[in-house]
Amino acid sequence: MTKIVIVGGVAGGASAAARARRLSEDAKIVMFERGPFVSFANCGLPYHVGGDIQDRSKLLLQTPDSFLARFNVDVRVMNEVTSINRSDKTVTVKNLVDGSQYTESYDFLLLSPGAAPFVPPINGIANPLTHTLRNIPDMDRILQTIQMNKPEHATVVGGGFIGLEMMEAFHQLGIKTTLIEMADQVMTPVDKEMAGFAHAEIRAHDVDLRLGVALESVHYTNNVQVASKDAGEATEHQHLQGSLQLTLNNGEQLNTDILIMSIGVRPESSLAKEAGLQLGAFGGIYTNDAMQTSDPAIYAVGDAVEDKDFVTGKPGFVPLAGPANRQGRMAADNMLGRSETYQGTQGTAIVKIFDLAVASVGKNEKVLKREGIRYEKVYVHTASHASYYPGSEIVSLKLLFSPETGKILGAQAAGKDGVDKRIDVLAVAQRAGMTIEQLQHLELTYAPPYGSAKDVINQAAFVANNILKGDSTPIHFDEVDNLTSDQILLDVRNPGELENVGFIAGAINIPVDQLRQRMDELPKDKEIIIYCQVGLRGNVAYRQLVNSGFKARNLIGGYRTYKFASI
Amino acid sequence: MTKIVIVGGVAGGASAAARARRLSEDAKIVMFERGPFVSFANCGLPYHVGGDIQDRSKLLLQTPDSFLARFNVDVRVMNEVTSINRSDKTVTVKNLVDGSQYTESYDFLLLSPGAAPFVPPINGIANPLTHTLRNIPDMDRILQTIQMNKPEHATVVGGGFIGLEMMEAFHQLGIKTTLIEMADQVMTPVDKEMAGFAHAEIRAHDVDLRLGVALESVHYTNNVQVASKDAGEATEHQHLQGSLQLTLNNGEQLNTDILIMSIGVRPESSLAKEAGLQLGAFGGIYTNDAMQTSDPAIYAVGDAVEDKDFVTGKPGFVPLAGPANRQGRMAADNMLGRSETYQGTQGTAIVKIFDLAVASVGKNEKVLKREGIRYEKVYVHTASHASYYPGSEIVSLKLLFSPETGKILGAQAAGKDGVDKRIDVLAVAQRAGMTIEQLQHLELTYAPPYGSAKDVINQAAFVANNILKGDSTPIHFDEVDNLTSDQILLDVRNPGELENVGFIAGAINIPVDQLRQRMDELPKDKEIIIYCQVGLRGNVAYRQLVNSGFKARNLIGGYRTYKFASI
Repeated sequence: MTKIVIVGGVAGGASAAARARRLSEDAKIVMFERGPFVSFANCGLPYHVGGDIQDRSKLLLQTPDSFLARFNVDVRVMNEVTSINRSDKTVTVKNLVDGSQYTESYDFLLLSPGAAPFVPPINGIANPLTHTLRNIPDMDRILQTIQMNKPEHATVVGGGFIGLEMMEAFHQLGIKTTLIEMADQVMTPVDKEMAGFAHAEIRAHDVDLRLGVALESVHYTNNVQVASKDAGEATEHQHLQGSLQLTLNNGEQLNTDILIMSIGVRPESSLAKEAGLQLGAFGGIYTNDAMQTSDPAIYAVGDAVEDKDFVTGKPGFVPLAGPANRQGRMAADNMLGRSETYQGTQGTAIVKIFDLAVASVGKNEKVLKREGIRYEKVYVHTASHASYYPGSEIVSLKLLFSPETGKILGAQAAGKDGVDKRIDVLAVAQRAGMTIEQLQHLELTYAPPYGSAKDVINQAAFVANNILKGDSTPIHFDEVDNLTSDQILLDVRNPGELENVGFIAGAINIPVDQLRQRMDELPKDKEIIIYCQVGLRGNVAYRQLVNSGFKARNLIGGYRTYKFASI
Repeated sequence: MTKIVIVGGVAGGASAAARARRLSEDAKIVMFERGPFVSFANCGLPYHVGGDIQDRSKLLLQTPDSFLARFNVDVRVMNEVTSINRSDKTVTVKNLVDGSQYTESYDFLLLSPGAAPFVPPINGIANPLTHTLRNIPDMDRILQTIQMNKPEHATVVGGGFIGLEMMEAFHQLGIKTTLIEMADQVMTPVDKEMAGFAHAEIRAHDVDLRLGVALESVHYTNNVQVASKDAGEATEHQHLQGSLQLTLNNGEQLNTDILIMSIGVRPESSLAKEAGLQLGAFGGIYTNDAMQTSDPAIYAVGDAVEDKDFVTGKPGFVPLAGPANRQGRMAADNMLGRSETYQGTQGTAIVKIFDLAVASVGKNEKVLKREGIRYEKVYVHTASHASYYPGSEIVSLKLLFSPETGKILGAQAAGKDGVDKRIDVLAVAQRAGMTIEQLQHLELTYAPPYGSAKDVINQAAFVANNILKGDSTPIHFDEVDNLTSDQILLDVRNPGELENVGFIAGAINIPVDQLRQRMDELPKDKEIIIYCQVGLRGNVAYRQLVNSGFKARNLIGGYRTYKFASI
């Protein structure tokens, strides 16, 4: 009889427990969780704050009782594993309710403690109005502050997944919101020019977005006096009635009524570290392909571990729910005698920002540059489904690929419809090792309400292959503001578009459909930098000019990529 | 200077013309179209009839003038190519406006004539109220009949894509509709038990769905007299005012005011046949991987050709817009000296049926049986996104795979959200040659509004792998009504579910969460056939029983698959 002890009862731990029981009816399985809840919907927490998920109980997917009944798992909430005694294969446990301590033996130990929000030591940050959001008690505290302090203004620090979702939650509650992000963009998994779509969406909802600025100090004022004045609205003891004055590193000050710190998370690896288990460069628990730590009797999964990056093959720290769940299942397999290997993490991710979805997979351009990996890139902006059928939206897609192998290095997309689908398609293609050449042949579902005969993905592949085959010489959005005197800029859109949408300074305008007749207006000794709205007409013009003996380049992604890069 | 002549100016032909011009500025390109329009949105026609696409001009994607301006293509509408003279590389063309004839020479000829609706020689079928729908003039005639005859009742014969879309169009116009289909199911690309979801959706909208019955004869009555009676509503000459009496092959009769024949299409291969080009077994034009016909100077693409099936490698006739467009582009490449090869057709397809999407890729079970290809299958019914976030719908997925190689043979899905995405994911995975084992590892976008940490696809892969590894012994919906005396049927749902949703006759009921305590109620000498609602709890129960020494099988897809199979 194998005895499996699990530390952490959410995604990875809970998946492992359920799988282990399905594989073995007689294994003894004990799951420790230091919090009061197991298997809760941590990704749903911001949506309960914002009111999309009205019923709090929907977040509680399993309880200790339901785990016992269905899987015969001994779940011990409010019990914290405080140390691992590897030599005698036991853990020391502290019962957080009565303070007692005890040990529990294991044949296999699974660590699934997750990652904790990182809060830098900012002056004044410890105050009753500042919160992080990781679990149900955190959420309850935020809800309580909202209820008691009735904030008119909220501030979120950090423009990652949780920060963006909390920003939207506050906005949805009618609370004026400021989002502060130290980088020059939100959603670091995508590159800045793609984050521009997010910035536009955020600003369109009147959120006060402040990029490139950091929180320096916090001053908390407890205005109990004020509370008693408007006690007519609620009994006095329900009022927290404090406020915060934030000072930013650019000297600006900001008054706010609630502050959420969501600048990132760090792996909870101290238990592992103290037990002498190997850690990785990011501070996460080292694991091999079997999700085994440096101790063969101890496995680790989820947000606390470093696992292999699918593109680079190097260890990485990517705290996401999908990998956590699959790793838990796999660790259970391996503890019970199977041999499953983890196939690497692509980091596929998506976030909803009001009506917009922003998603990505694989490596972004910033990382590829940093890692010195050669890449080429294309941008397309194409309708999510047949544009003549109602409800289609533009999908803006960036595709990064290897000029040597043609393989997909990464992809990013933003739009109000069909973004998840396109990144999923590319996530599968990347995992399968497909090339840009093969992407052209993808045969995706098409009927007017769902897609196009030439899908966004096919079109991106066409553009990419044109570059690889030399049928197109690209120029990118960040190069067109610095043209030399040997280059001229040609806008091939219709004059009305320049007027309504804007144009790049210094461009001359010949609509593509007049180009064949007006080619003699262009010089053959200069390089003609062509652009249109999204790059498609630009390519038609490019081919005309090049096939007629001109030197030319086409702005990939057109004016739309150029414009959103600066938002 | 290469001269390319194209027969047919819609999907494949138009794509080829545009691509050819981008590759060569000096090629001469002539495109013949016997109809009045080129490059129209044929997939949008039913949606204009139904009113979703209000503006008819949105269906006209290009005009001869726009083609000339942008691509310098000589487009000749109302000009029909009547014969191909291969020895001197010319075509004979009839100008349908003035009746004149002329010849046009070519270096390369591209045939893209499409496929025509097939109407069997039914008695009385030629009447002013009976239509097919292929092009804009067809659509205009249907609209005219609706306007003039003001039908109270419409009949659609054929439950394929066009038939289903026209059924919905009539329903949307408030016209009582009957859908007649000779097979025992609509949407033949999916198997009957998956078509059950479509049947339920159709009947829920009060459409009179008649399966397994055929139209035998039509009697047309011209009721001009009736027209004058209610002339107050409209001037008399606007009234067509006829009606049809339909006789079905089961003896039933039906009165209707408009009849759409949409039982299928046949390749327009007569021009090719008369020119001595090789045809395939389905009557389509034979093409090799370069989209070349048996004459190296003649290429053919789109609905008129037979191309290679991705799964079987055999020639097939799959008239779909996606392949047509990509083949056109590829044929242009090859005519202009490149060498692109077509990678086979998976037949990825989707149809909207009211709020439901039904989609498929690859081979269905009927075809696999017919072709003698070994397969295994699984069904899952899983939320389109996190079920605790509003708006999630059940995706019902059938996955067919090879028990030898683990490769995907086909997939089918039905549901009100996320169906296109899941079939797209599987279409990519199939094309990449991924196995069921690899599908487990797919890392798809997850945030509560878009997916689940374990996506539908991951779950289907888990179930499939459990079968391949012997962790699950499946039983399927069509076997549980014929159990032997050595088998007993165990429903592991909660009693309330049996009461509300129904159950399979003869089942005993032990809820999964009580099973561990009540196992002794079950016999060890019989095979226990377990089922739950969708198969998940059934698997938990199965593992408990098998790990405790029972013989058992689990109904894959659970009661939901069983129930919809009989609708």
